[in-house]
Amino acid sequence: MIVGRISDTRTRLLETAIELMYVRGYSAVGVQELCTRAGVNKGSFYYFFPSKRELALAVIDVYRQRMLDLWNDALTADYAPLERLRRTFERTYEVHCGLMAVNGQMHGCPLGNLALELSCQDEEIRQRLCDTFADWIGMIDRLLRQAVATGALPVIDTTTTAQTVVAYFEGVMMLAKTQNDLAVVTHLPHSVMALVRAAVQAPPR
Amino acid sequence: MIVGRISDTRTRLLETAIELMYVRGYSAVGVQELCTRAGVNKGSFYYFFPSKRELALAVIDVYRQRMLDLWNDALTADYAPLERLRRTFERTYEVHCGLMAVNGQMHGCPLGNLALELSCQDEEIRQRLCDTFADWIGMIDRLLRQAVATGALPVIDTTTTAQTVVAYFEGVMMLAKTQNDLAVVTHLPHSVMALVRAAVQAPPR
Repeated sequence: MIVGRISDTRTRLLETAIELMYVRGYSAVGVQELCTRAGVNKGSFYYFFPSKRELALAVIDVYRQRMLDLWNDALTADYAPLERLRRTFERTYEVHCGLMAVNGQMHGCPLGNLALELSCQDEEIRQRLCDTFADWIGMIDRLLRQAVATGALPVIDTTTTAQTVVAYFEGVMMLAKTQNDLAVVTHLPHSVMALVRAAVQAPPR
Repeated sequence: MIVGRISDTRTRLLETAIELMYVRGYSAVGVQELCTRAGVNKGSFYYFFPSKRELALAVIDVYRQRMLDLWNDALTADYAPLERLRRTFERTYEVHCGLMAVNGQMHGCPLGNLALELSCQDEEIRQRLCDTFADWIGMIDRLLRQAVATGALPVIDTTTTAQTVVAYFEGVMMLAKTQNDLAVVTHLPHSVMALVRAAVQAPPR
């Protein structure tokens, strides 16, 4: 079962990185600490990840896949499109309630955290995060287009609206992290719907 | 002129920290690098700042004062309140256009950057950032109340709306930093007005 063990080691390193970097960011977490915490020696680390930044790219890919899974569910669930949009943000809120109960602290959006820490330091990481946000905006764009197609929304600039929704989500998560309190996130699903209505009232120039 | 020199040294350290931490964050910038860049020895550093985190708190206070100055102007300028809100975000956009031209890179909102990097690592820094965001939300709240008082807005939940505006601003700055492109910020003044209109259309529950 060598393949199994190798795969386990990579997974353990990845999960440890996800855990530590979520709380303390990228720069403050060292390779030695990652290895110790994961119970892996440095040779194994560098076998799987040529550098800490390669590990960070793998962490981003994990979050990207989780985001895609969540929004794929939203695109195909058996409800009206705008109801699926609202429910997906409700689910996101509930996930963060659960995380905060476990962690005793609000850690924010892991993609947003890495985006602000690293976008000016590493071009490849910036690009990977930029692509991930673009994918996310694209998923919400598709959901809004479904709403337009079913007549639930008039014709609006769905792409700009999707971008506004993601920006608002990231800002709310930042305030919640800074306040160490999820109260500001409580209104998220409602406010997202208000943002979509704002797009209807005043389509971007 | 000893007082002058002492004051100069503190100012130089503060300006160097503002410059370096804006690009690379807090963890990635060391005290030795700050001293070398500022032309100050370590003894002088620790005379003014017992630790790097004290310097970070002073950096936050500088940004807080700039924010208060900007929004004090917005509260007292000789235009209608909503026009002052729009113009202040236009000014913010222009400032970041200028910064990006000088730096060749979009560095985002310095307060947002520190908030996401440090809120889970240092309780005093988190609280200082939280207070700063609360002050900022308070300034926009006062501006919206002026708009309500003059009849430019109906009675809305100005505090929640101000919070939504700040969250949206921070999220847009995050996307702009991740895209290394200010295009997403271009619509900021317009979108903020749409958010305020959304509050009128659908007051929070």
